[in-house]
Amino acid sequence: MVTIDLNADLGEGFGRWTLTDDEALLAVVTSANVACGFHAGDPSTIRRVCELAAERGVRIGAQVSYRDLAGFGRRPMEVPRRELADEIAYQLGALDLFARAAGTAVAYLKPHGALYNRVVHDQEQAGAVVDALLAYRRADGRGLPVLGLPGSALLAAALAAGLPVVAEAFADRAYTAQGTLVPRTEPGAVLHDPDQVVARAVRMARDGEVVAADGSLVPVRAGSLCVHGDTPGAAALALRVREALTAAGVGVEAFG
Amino acid sequence: MVTIDLNADLGEGFGRWTLTDDEALLAVVTSANVACGFHAGDPSTIRRVCELAAERGVRIGAQVSYRDLAGFGRRPMEVPRRELADEIAYQLGALDLFARAAGTAVAYLKPHGALYNRVVHDQEQAGAVVDALLAYRRADGRGLPVLGLPGSALLAAALAAGLPVVAEAFADRAYTAQGTLVPRTEPGAVLHDPDQVVARAVRMARDGEVVAADGSLVPVRAGSLCVHGDTPGAAALALRVREALTAAGVGVEAFG
Amino acid sequence: MVTIDLNADLGEGFGRWTLTDDEALLAVVTSANVACGFHAGDPSTIRRVCELAAERGVRIGAQVSYRDLAGFGRRPMEVPRRELADEIAYQLGALDLFARAAGTAVAYLKPHGALYNRVVHDQEQAGAVVDALLAYRRADGRGLPVLGLPGSALLAAALAAGLPVVAEAFADRAYTAQGTLVPRTEPGAVLHDPDQVVARAVRMARDGEVVAADGSLVPVRAGSLCVHGDTPGAAALALRVREALTAAGVGVEAFG
Amino acid sequence: MVTIDLNADLGEGFGRWTLTDDEALLAVVTSANVACGFHAGDPSTIRRVCELAAERGVRIGAQVSYRDLAGFGRRPMEVPRRELADEIAYQLGALDLFARAAGTAVAYLKPHGALYNRVVHDQEQAGAVVDALLAYRRADGRGLPVLGLPGSALLAAALAAGLPVVAEAFADRAYTAQGTLVPRTEPGAVLHDPDQVVARAVRMARDGEVVAADGSLVPVRAGSLCVHGDTPGAAALALRVREALTAAGVGVEAFG
Repeated sequence: MVTIDLNADLGEGFGRWTLTDDEALLAVVTSANVACGFHAGDPSTIRRVCELAAERGVRIGAQVSYRDLAGFGRRPMEVPRRELADEIAYQLGALDLFARAAGTAVAYLKPHGALYNRVVHDQEQAGAVVDALLAYRRADGRGLPVLGLPGSALLAAALAAGLPVVAEAFADRAYTAQGTLVPRTEPGAVLHDPDQVVARAVRMARDGEVVAADGSLVPVRAGSLCVHGDTPGAAALALRVREALTAAGVGVEAFG
Repeated sequence: MVTIDLNADLGEGFGRWTLTDDEALLAVVTSANVACGFHAGDPSTIRRVCELAAERGVRIGAQVSYRDLAGFGRRPMEVPRRELADEIAYQLGALDLFARAAGTAVAYLKPHGALYNRVVHDQEQAGAVVDALLAYRRADGRGLPVLGLPGSALLAAALAAGLPVVAEAFADRAYTAQGTLVPRTEPGAVLHDPDQVVARAVRMARDGEVVAADGSLVPVRAGSLCVHGDTPGAAALALRVREALTAAGVGVEAFG
Repeated sequence: MVTIDLNADLGEGFGRWTLTDDEALLAVVTSANVACGFHAGDPSTIRRVCELAAERGVRIGAQVSYRDLAGFGRRPMEVPRRELADEIAYQLGALDLFARAAGTAVAYLKPHGALYNRVVHDQEQAGAVVDALLAYRRADGRGLPVLGLPGSALLAAALAAGLPVVAEAFADRAYTAQGTLVPRTEPGAVLHDPDQVVARAVRMARDGEVVAADGSLVPVRAGSLCVHGDTPGAAALALRVREALTAAGVGVEAFG
Repeated sequence: MVTIDLNADLGEGFGRWTLTDDEALLAVVTSANVACGFHAGDPSTIRRVCELAAERGVRIGAQVSYRDLAGFGRRPMEVPRRELADEIAYQLGALDLFARAAGTAVAYLKPHGALYNRVVHDQEQAGAVVDALLAYRRADGRGLPVLGLPGSALLAAALAAGLPVVAEAFADRAYTAQGTLVPRTEPGAVLHDPDQVVARAVRMARDGEVVAADGSLVPVRAGSLCVHGDTPGAAALALRVREALTAAGVGVEAFG
């Protein structure tokens, strides 16, 4: 049976503020990208999400970010490689304690926001993410998988360092004929029709393909589908995606 | 041979700012209380101090604090027990990754500043510190020792939870006839004469006693002596204390 | 005609996070307590709220707080008087620029959260708030009014310094027979029945009295009624309060 | 008589940490670039520096920055224009209150660190700085001068908006034959020989020229000379520069 992982961002509140519907999303996804405190995610939120995820058998990933609460990690920053690696390792270690205290451990890493976009092309920052994972491997013995965009500098750097990688796809994003994402600045970059999103998710997971913005058919090989969790109705749409996958005979389970 | 541990606060810079002479102190102390990022201690500083400490065989302790960079953790705060426990666990986890990546691990915990003073008497906050250590024990299997003031609520709570405790003494602080510290707000609470500090350190470590502010002789049972690191000349004084201890036949080594 | 001011907390988001329904509240209140960045309120939110308030003729007040984003300013802190005064002055100055750029100016100050509760009894922190207002008076020439609890140390200190004060009342809080608020830790401290809240607001404003928790009738002299804005339905309830006041012949307009 | 302004960065501590020797620098410079809290500068430091500057007749400038305490404002950031303008206005307003409470007012603006370098070329961020100054002009009536690099996008944008500008020169930086600064990444970009720095300062101020890195003579028209304050010996070198200027018949006084 074909299987696919579903991942979403969770724990993106901070103190008095909440954002993601963590309870609802944990009933849908197989991998939870947990905010680690630098763009969102206070310690108590992290603990609660880790406890819930562990209870429900949802895998915990480190959703690491630039240090930027005011900008929610969406403002690209130039950070020297060594310094960025240390900031990411700090987040990894903090999250890992909560995951382990809940009976599990951090299972993978996925960069957040501006850092995610940056490491698609930026070798130095991609290297910093990998350096943090190598610190984790020295600390723990495990080389954590990286979840990211296929073809990105990050996945290439992780592979070169002997770390596992998992490519992800986005059911609600338009693709170019080359199989890359249409930039958000272009019209039609984000799909808002739930039926269309659900149908694309199934086609990506089951058939390994997506219809690109120019109408051509493009192959998509992804170990995980990203569903969004920070908008109203997001958890409901994620649930529809999961149900449609199951109905189409696609197994929804955590990646490899 | 009588032995004693020497501890000092290290890594208390933040980004562009430095405070403690970490290199010099690591040549003197046997236990380094490393700032974990909430009152001081950016990730790169934490990494460097951990690497140096591991290289020199100095034990790494988590110097945890209230979240208060602007006040350097010296402003007492009311934080609900659960929330404070989570904030402390977050710091512990972050530091632990750097310690392990450097080939060692966090070996103990010592609260910083206002939190240190608070947990002398405050049951709830003492309980929060212990809760964080229990989270660490669930995560790691090890119950970390707590370094603190003899007679404090913190050491009592740690003992009650089955955690090891280490009492510390201060060679540069005046003691009451009851064996407690003279509050800093009183005249003469802090001793500034290096010769006197050195002599008291030796007497505390070798003879288990100190001359109180009223002239009486008071027993002091401490597993560790705290030397200060954040003033000019601090590292030099710490070195004199260590040399005097050695000359007096007291072994300087990490606690139990 | 009897008149009363209506005040509410606004602008309590931060970056990606929102909390208060600022648009809806600005259609109801006559005084907006604008968060100044220390417990909530990023600069862009401050600017937008100031622009909207100026457009609609709603007065802008400085809702100053301890520096505590993670705790939303709800964690009591010990801050030395001089330092706290400076932290408050900093917030006042920042808000004032946005208020002036929008064509108005800060019109009053109201402490937030834990600071609000602290200055009911704490002379030193009440003095710090007043010191900040005196700095503003030196800077600007105007002595800003303080909005606070009748009988509080803050209002006393402000009066002693020659600053105007405005007492406020809470339609959704239980009162003791002595006219003070029933502490939130006691059952029944907060009223949740909208009809009851509306009726109490009218009675407070029109008749200057409230039924205390023990059934006795207590006089209430308030220049402003506080309505809450950070819960679902808060803006709707505030609107009902305003409409009931108008229907009862009470004019709703900014204080003094 | 030829005159020149001397400016330096001041108030660059934060809480427990100090960096610049503010007392010594205030005895030398005519314009103090005061850190406003986003890269350095806690409120109490800002107040003290403003009080000292006012006492000594030194002009106060707003040294505004990206929000980046951990990186000391040295990490370039992409911030949307409107958001950056608001962050800068926030800093301007906060500083202005302390300056006014001390009997003066903010007299100019100079961007700090990565923002300073960015607005040499970046139209959008230069526009954001100007937008903040226009907010100040709406609030206060005064169009504050901008201190910056001659030929920069910032000075061009400020001029276009009708704001005064002041070009500055650096006695300790190498210049290209085109009159721009040699990038810090190139060897010889920063001059460390005090005698050479002093001689260049005099030649720049008195003769309006500097010897470029390739030996050619380049005209320099600057209203202000920047002296650095964050390294050991910085204040002493600044004093030598000032004395040499005076000895050479150049008046040292605040610009325009």
